[in-house]
Amino acid sequence: MIQERGSRIKTEEQDVTSYRIAVVGGTGPQGKGLGYRFARHGHAVVLGSRAADRAAVAADEIRERVPDADVTGAGNADAAAAADVVVLAVPYDGHDELVDDLAPVLEGKTIISCVNPLGFDKQGPYGLEVPGGSAAEAAASIVADATVVGAFHHVSAVSLWGDAEYLDHEDVLVCGDDADAKQVAIELARSVTGRDGVDAGRLRLARQLEPLTAVLISINKRYKTRSGIAISGVQGL
Amino acid sequence: MIQERGSRIKTEEQDVTSYRIAVVGGTGPQGKGLGYRFARHGHAVVLGSRAADRAAVAADEIRERVPDADVTGAGNADAAAAADVVVLAVPYDGHDELVDDLAPVLEGKTIISCVNPLGFDKQGPYGLEVPGGSAAEAAASIVADATVVGAFHHVSAVSLWGDAEYLDHEDVLVCGDDADAKQVAIELARSVTGRDGVDAGRLRLARQLEPLTAVLISINKRYKTRSGIAISGVQGL
Repeated sequence: MIQERGSRIKTEEQDVTSYRIAVVGGTGPQGKGLGYRFARHGHAVVLGSRAADRAAVAADEIRERVPDADVTGAGNADAAAAADVVVLAVPYDGHDELVDDLAPVLEGKTIISCVNPLGFDKQGPYGLEVPGGSAAEAAASIVADATVVGAFHHVSAVSLWGDAEYLDHEDVLVCGDDADAKQVAIELARSVTGRDGVDAGRLRLARQLEPLTAVLISINKRYKTRSGIAISGVQGL
Repeated sequence: MIQERGSRIKTEEQDVTSYRIAVVGGTGPQGKGLGYRFARHGHAVVLGSRAADRAAVAADEIRERVPDADVTGAGNADAAAAADVVVLAVPYDGHDELVDDLAPVLEGKTIISCVNPLGFDKQGPYGLEVPGGSAAEAAASIVADATVVGAFHHVSAVSLWGDAEYLDHEDVLVCGDDADAKQVAIELARSVTGRDGVDAGRLRLARQLEPLTAVLISINKRYKTRSGIAISGVQGL
């Protein structure tokens, strides 16, 4: 039995809410990978891009892999306007300007920021100094009427696009100041890891989650692997 | 067969080097817990404290649990002077002054910093702004002639002092700019987790590792647990 709740569709047998999700930056590897995972697990996905035609191509790529996926492509603003949940999967470079441009269509929505403000030099990756503390906090201050959480920073784009049903050795860490918005990201994590995301505390802890990706990239290089984060002591580990 | 290498004793059968380790701040829960683990796994440990008699009491507590442990207590400077490897397990408050005081006995040694510069307010724990970027980097700049690595930031003091043979669902993340010093911490991690520590990159990534503890403390509070970090994709996970 399907029950309509606003534009959120709840499939009651599975006790899983199906969301209408826009992925801003949906043609990048992280955004396309997340869109694939969300679509594969029954969410309606609109990939957003600066160029709507490139977004449509990425949506086709997902539909090739998941024939019954509800996935389309659009310009970033149209994508965001059509969704309840907007995932920001864009490079940090230009992030604030993009969020500012999209502010009118982001108001009132749940925004999930997966932005990793990283720099690279001869010594490898490092966390950038970010005005406002973190990209997630910057988005929250630019769109004061939206609810921002941070999540999905650490899952490898290659793993997201891979064949494994779930990345079940990893956890999605979710930070935010609004319990309902945080719960949306915690549920959406199931599409990626097969289990709830981990509530990692307040939004300001995005200052820790975002640049932690620099550590994972260092580990990947050192061990020639695709590393991920798991939290022991929470979900049976 | 035991082979002497300077004051490092190598037990060749096991291919495990036995170190002479000072734990500065060895009467605090983190320091005493690490000292217990190192002593239990055959390293010679000197717990350091501002008050040598308190350090002796903590050493007695460890010996009660590990009767054949080579563990003693001393003032911080005497402890550090007697060791090859000095673990800094002190609160961040007063850290720079303490390291400056100890600088003469730290020169030429391998220093492992487990210092977590955290603040706490109504919203919970957060990472402090640290001059020099991180406590580990600050120690490295204060004692220019020592080799500093960061490690052991994330293991719970309660788990360290617990009965489990190994905290085998957790990883010790090690950062540093000197491969040999990093290797010492990677080996010492075996005393805690039963496996090598994970090489997490350059010393400056201590900026990420140190305040990550704020995330774990938030998780502990939310889930009433003792959480830890594990890295998937590196050691069989």
